[in-house]
Amino acid sequence: MLKGFAEGAGAVPAGEARALRWEIEEFNSAYAAALDAGRVADWPAFFTDDAHYRITGRDNADADLPVGLVYCDGMGMLKDRALAIASTMMFAPRYLLHQVTNVRVLSRDPSGVVSATANYALFETLVDARTTLQQIGRYYDRFRRRNGTLLLQERHCVYDSLVIDTALIYPV
Amino acid sequence: MLKGFAEGAGAVPAGEARALRWEIEEFNSAYAAALDAGRVADWPAFFTDDAHYRITGRDNADADLPVGLVYCDGMGMLKDRALAIASTMMFAPRYLLHQVTNVRVLSRDPSGVVSATANYALFETLVDARTTLQQIGRYYDRFRRRNGTLLLQERHCVYDSLVIDTALIYPV
Amino acid sequence: MLKGFAEGAGAVPAGEARALRWEIEEFNSAYAAALDAGRVADWPAFFTDDAHYRITGRDNADADLPVGLVYCDGMGMLKDRALAIASTMMFAPRYLLHQVTNVRVLSRDPSGVVSATANYALFETLVDARTTLQQIGRYYDRFRRRNGTLLLQERHCVYDSLVIDTALIYPV
Repeated sequence: MLKGFAEGAGAVPAGEARALRWEIEEFNSAYAAALDAGRVADWPAFFTDDAHYRITGRDNADADLPVGLVYCDGMGMLKDRALAIASTMMFAPRYLLHQVTNVRVLSRDPSGVVSATANYALFETLVDARTTLQQIGRYYDRFRRRNGTLLLQERHCVYDSLVIDTALIYPV
Repeated sequence: MLKGFAEGAGAVPAGEARALRWEIEEFNSAYAAALDAGRVADWPAFFTDDAHYRITGRDNADADLPVGLVYCDGMGMLKDRALAIASTMMFAPRYLLHQVTNVRVLSRDPSGVVSATANYALFETLVDARTTLQQIGRYYDRFRRRNGTLLLQERHCVYDSLVIDTALIYPV
Repeated sequence: MLKGFAEGAGAVPAGEARALRWEIEEFNSAYAAALDAGRVADWPAFFTDDAHYRITGRDNADADLPVGLVYCDGMGMLKDRALAIASTMMFAPRYLLHQVTNVRVLSRDPSGVVSATANYALFETLVDARTTLQQIGRYYDRFRRRNGTLLLQERHCVYDSLVIDTALIYPV
């Protein structure tokens, strides 16, 4: 469990937690569909303006190290990354598919920020190759409501897979 | 995204979309359980009489090609296929298990047909062999309600896996 | 389908079945999170005092054989196993991650015991190794409500994977 994502503190009443879970499940499905379709330009719209996004290994996360494979701080960096990926295809064509499961609502702080986790598997298929598990991991998320819609203020993609294709620049 | 499965057109109000999602999740779990148990004779009952069913690659689907690995048009062909599989075991014994996730309700047209997608992983275990990912892909579905129950009028199983065991004749 | 887990008998009204499904989904996510975090000491608390737990192969289960890879009968054996694992790390360090999907509520008997199934994938990552699918299978569960909370009276973890690392002693 990532530091600061403890259960119990700021516990959400059961009925409200369930409604939040449904909403987050739908959020995660829309998020995954955008990435799986290659619509990386739509990716920043899932975040708040002051959002943090990173992809990091479980060993790093367990050691509470802030660094990672990918790190974006704020909408500017998110859009820069999306633009860079869209305009410079530095990697071989591939298909991606997410399976996002086990959504858990952990807490809600007084300001309304909702902490949640989900398990993800990202499958990758290169041309003329077998499908492989690109990475498996867990999203550690903080959601904030903007104009009635949940947005990510933080998404930490913490992957178990210690041997990973470091050529990866595509968001997870 | 398969042609004709755009989001937005015929958008469903949020509350109704969520109720449809629950119903489709339950449909998909029952569908997968029948196939995973080898009850292929029960498979046609998940479809309307005029249903279309196919299994095709994502490259084919992206190119809007109607062909595929498997194609059934109408209840007669669905039942023929089920019977053929049940009566002629042309392939080695194996266990199958589906994981169906990320159900999304995309739209509902004026006649009540609901368009939806889901991501699936199909795992296969042959005797004395390790479990492998037989295919990963997405269902592109159109559901119609008959006597209060959702049935498939169309199911396109679009797999990412470009290298696939073409001996496959079992439904996905 | 494991013997005694037939659908239909003791069918649950649709609305109640759906509410139970939500509750079981949340149960399974909490259960998986405890195991994935290595909190094996918390594992017995998911069971009733008189619970049965086992891990067995699909070939064994199909043949209705009671034996299996792991078997616990009652809280004493569950706690013994948790303690043994926590205190004697006989296996190499690894990360585990569950994906639990396709929850189905099958029936509820007059005494209130709810029968349900779910499909699981357990991914394992050893240090300096690629992530592998440790096992894929199905939970066959019987839940009983205690003080308002669902607990497992039976959990049969029936794995498809016939070639499995028999050094496994960690719960699934």
